[in-house]
Amino acid sequence: MSDDDQELGITESKSHNTGEWYAEVVRKAGLADYGPEGMSGFIITRPRAYAVWERLQGFLDAKFKDTGVQNAYFPMFIPESYLEREKDIVEGFDPEVAWVTEAGTKELEERLAVRPTSESIITPYISQWVRSHRDLPLRVNQWCSVVRWEATETKPFFRTKEFLWQEGHTAHATSEDAWDETMTRLDQYESVYEDFLAIPVLKGQKPAHDKFPGADTTTTVEALMPDGKSVQGATSHHLGRSFAEAFDITFSDAEEDERTAHTTSWGLSWRALGALIMTHSDEQGLVLPPTVAPTQVVVVPIWQEDTKDDVLAYAEGVADDLDDAGIRVELDDRDERNPGFKFNEHELNGIPLRIEIGPYEVEDDELTLNHRPDGEEHVEAREGVAETVRDHLDTVYAKLYAAAEDTLDGEVREADDRAGILGTLGQHGGYVKTPWCGDEACEEPIKEPMAAEIVMVPFEDDDPLVGERGDGEGDAAGSDDDASHGETCAICGDPAERTAYFAKSY
Amino acid sequence: MSDDDQELGITESKSHNTGEWYAEVVRKAGLADYGPEGMSGFIITRPRAYAVWERLQGFLDAKFKDTGVQNAYFPMFIPESYLEREKDIVEGFDPEVAWVTEAGTKELEERLAVRPTSESIITPYISQWVRSHRDLPLRVNQWCSVVRWEATETKPFFRTKEFLWQEGHTAHATSEDAWDETMTRLDQYESVYEDFLAIPVLKGQKPAHDKFPGADTTTTVEALMPDGKSVQGATSHHLGRSFAEAFDITFSDAEEDERTAHTTSWGLSWRALGALIMTHSDEQGLVLPPTVAPTQVVVVPIWQEDTKDDVLAYAEGVADDLDDAGIRVELDDRDERNPGFKFNEHELNGIPLRIEIGPYEVEDDELTLNHRPDGEEHVEAREGVAETVRDHLDTVYAKLYAAAEDTLDGEVREADDRAGILGTLGQHGGYVKTPWCGDEACEEPIKEPMAAEIVMVPFEDDDPLVGERGDGEGDAAGSDDDASHGETCAICGDPAERTAYFAKSY
Ligand SMILES: [Zn+2]
Ligand SMILES: [Zn+2]
Repeated sequence: MSDDDQELGITESKSHNTGEWYAEVVRKAGLADYGPEGMSGFIITRPRAYAVWERLQGFLDAKFKDTGVQNAYFPMFIPESYLEREKDIVEGFDPEVAWVTEAGTKELEERLAVRPTSESIITPYISQWVRSHRDLPLRVNQWCSVVRWEATETKPFFRTKEFLWQEGHTAHATSEDAWDETMTRLDQYESVYEDFLAIPVLKGQKPAHDKFPGADTTTTVEALMPDGKSVQGATSHHLGRSFAEAFDITFSDAEEDERTAHTTSWGLSWRALGALIMTHSDEQGLVLPPTVAPTQVVVVPIWQEDTKDDVLAYAEGVADDLDDAGIRVELDDRDERNPGFKFNEHELNGIPLRIEIGPYEVEDDELTLNHRPDGEEHVEAREGVAETVRDHLDTVYAKLYAAAEDTLDGEVREADDRAGILGTLGQHGGYVKTPWCGDEACEEPIKEPMAAEIVMVPFEDDDPLVGERGDGEGDAAGSDDDASHGETCAICGDPAERTAYFAKSY
Repeated sequence: MSDDDQELGITESKSHNTGEWYAEVVRKAGLADYGPEGMSGFIITRPRAYAVWERLQGFLDAKFKDTGVQNAYFPMFIPESYLEREKDIVEGFDPEVAWVTEAGTKELEERLAVRPTSESIITPYISQWVRSHRDLPLRVNQWCSVVRWEATETKPFFRTKEFLWQEGHTAHATSEDAWDETMTRLDQYESVYEDFLAIPVLKGQKPAHDKFPGADTTTTVEALMPDGKSVQGATSHHLGRSFAEAFDITFSDAEEDERTAHTTSWGLSWRALGALIMTHSDEQGLVLPPTVAPTQVVVVPIWQEDTKDDVLAYAEGVADDLDDAGIRVELDDRDERNPGFKFNEHELNGIPLRIEIGPYEVEDDELTLNHRPDGEEHVEAREGVAETVRDHLDTVYAKLYAAAEDTLDGEVREADDRAGILGTLGQHGGYVKTPWCGDEACEEPIKEPMAAEIVMVPFEDDDPLVGERGDGEGDAAGSDDDASHGETCAICGDPAERTAYFAKSY
């Protein structure tokens, strides 16, 4: 796509107008376009963003398959009567459902919901497939899109009426098994963020009043955005028996007794792309970690007429070596653009590493490397270029992760009364951790004036759900906040049961 | 999933009741279930079938990416006014569209079509992205599902109201470039069938009266099913300028003149899975070529109490060697099932190669291999098992292809008058090739009594479209049927312009 020079620049400030800056990066880096007239709230996912989504899919799908998950595909429509069979689901999603009422020139007898989530159509089939304890655990996942008719303003990838995601659905013989499953998926989501997207996350559960409709427990990974708001990065739900009872998932156990299964569901959406773009990008445009970047390295030859042949041949050799080593490399040998334009364009598009090759590099058998995130330059030997580039890509990843981790570490603060919570959130944003009695009513005095809420409650050793696992894995689930016991709720002064993380959120 | 013994058997005859036999294989081999009440025409794609679809995706997607295609994702809804902008599309698809009329508890101002195909929403964006000839060719593809509200009976994968597919959309500077694109994709579809699904296909174009709505030319690969009907395996359309004009895809050429682009679209759906299942399977159940089989080899140890340890250890070693070599292997060491049950189950589920290991094999350092398609047995040395197994998998593929090719070769017959066409189709099914004047009216006398139609017209050297390419590639497009010239139309007696292939079709 042709771009005029002035279009390459980002004009909005990341720190002052984060929302406008984000929208500008998404558009100018060719990540997404807005939907057509009549379809506000929908986006077109352009190839550069879709390629990142494909890489994320590959990473996560491999983890799923390694841990017993099989992919499947269920219809995109759910009959209204099915949606109604689990009362919390219908109450939770009904206001957001898009309905098909006419098809093939006729009015339908029963309205069909475009899936907002698929428990209501997947669970009845799991029920048919499960007869004996030998059929458990049963795990299916689908990569698809879902529709939720949100009224609030669109933000590409963060908030759209249709979004891409994966939704996993499993059935288990015991609640303990379902809890293990819930945590396995949560840990895999944590790994997507920390090991692949270079974004540290906080892991915990949602407060009871903010669970997925019908769930016993909703667990979450939360990521901090540069404007101090929290993003729910992915959720994993222990659904208890509510869906199994609504849709009759029973099995005969080893003693031939009939029992009801426990189910889970878990999902990660393209909101992960939104978090990725927003966390790392800057006022030159998109920044991507090398793990997900469609192009990891761009080689830019810089020549005069008399050096052109030598420089180009040298640059081609470098690109070939990298390509042979499995590194995703692009050689930008366009005649019609000057190096400065190319630098700007590749920075805008988020290529993590640039290799500049001019006559001096050719003469000295060297390369000049430039790290996208901070512009740091290194001169390296031509020999062993693939190994060198791999090291630099690792360094770029580490830089991005470290920067995001520094931000997160500095943005978790403590407060022990209402004024402290409101003041800290108002002044700094980020997370405020505070002792909490567990009552929804004690969220209101913060939520009402500030639009901040309890986004996460860390796991604790004596957590009924962690405890239920009975294997001492409570610690592994990230519990280091047991300090709340003995304290009093920051709002009502009753004994504190948990630690709550307040934040504004997307 | 637990299965009772009697459920493993296929009871219908492939040759006598092909439709019922197919439905039974689909259900008993765990490939698909029917949709819930209120959703007839929809299917649930179970993991075994979905895994085959994923492999097919991988094969085709790699070819696309090697030839300049980028994946993207567009909204699943299309505003009615967009659908109406290209008149042939709206006429062609309107009777099959599912409409969203309510969303978020409100009635929509404009109905939204659930995409039956995406030209009408993709083309306007291509129009925004193309400004100069440097932006061409522009190619995007998406893997998604589409909905067409067909009234006829459901046949899993062959005919469903929602189906998975890929749809590619491209824009080009010239008609010649668009024709090259059309043929590149058709050749890739041919390769999917012939090199990956072990199904030979016939390549040609649809008669003018059976083109995709709005297309200049629709090309097709056709596969013959065992009941003598033809399946349209995939289609690739040269859309001419109709969509570019309707949606304003213009570009400035090298002389800065404004020109209108030429576009193509091309798609392959999960109907390919239907053709795969129907072509190779038999009365023991599913048969899959090793290329697509989720499990390529099953190792079945056969032991008595006193030989159990030795046999199991040996079998595990074999499975490990195969796994290390990247072969998709499963070791079936279940205690609660006997070998006979296991053989039946793995045959039902279409595992291409079985390795049986008993005490004699252990003693002699050997393996007994069994080919799924024909039960042929081979005793082979234990040493070099990975290499041996690879050879046998290649042999299994070759057997499947050869059998399908023999069938196809025997099922192309000639006739030169109406009685001959009807008689041959009535007696044998398959294809009848015949000289044809090119007039739709001459299809009626066959279509009306027989429900057979012209499914394919082979490319010819003097074909206006082949000729337009101007590069002598007409031959490469599979034209060996120029014999029709000089002959007369089998129906009306006018001079024949083309060769027509009549067949019944899915
Ligand atoms: Zn309280
Ligand atoms: Zn005629």
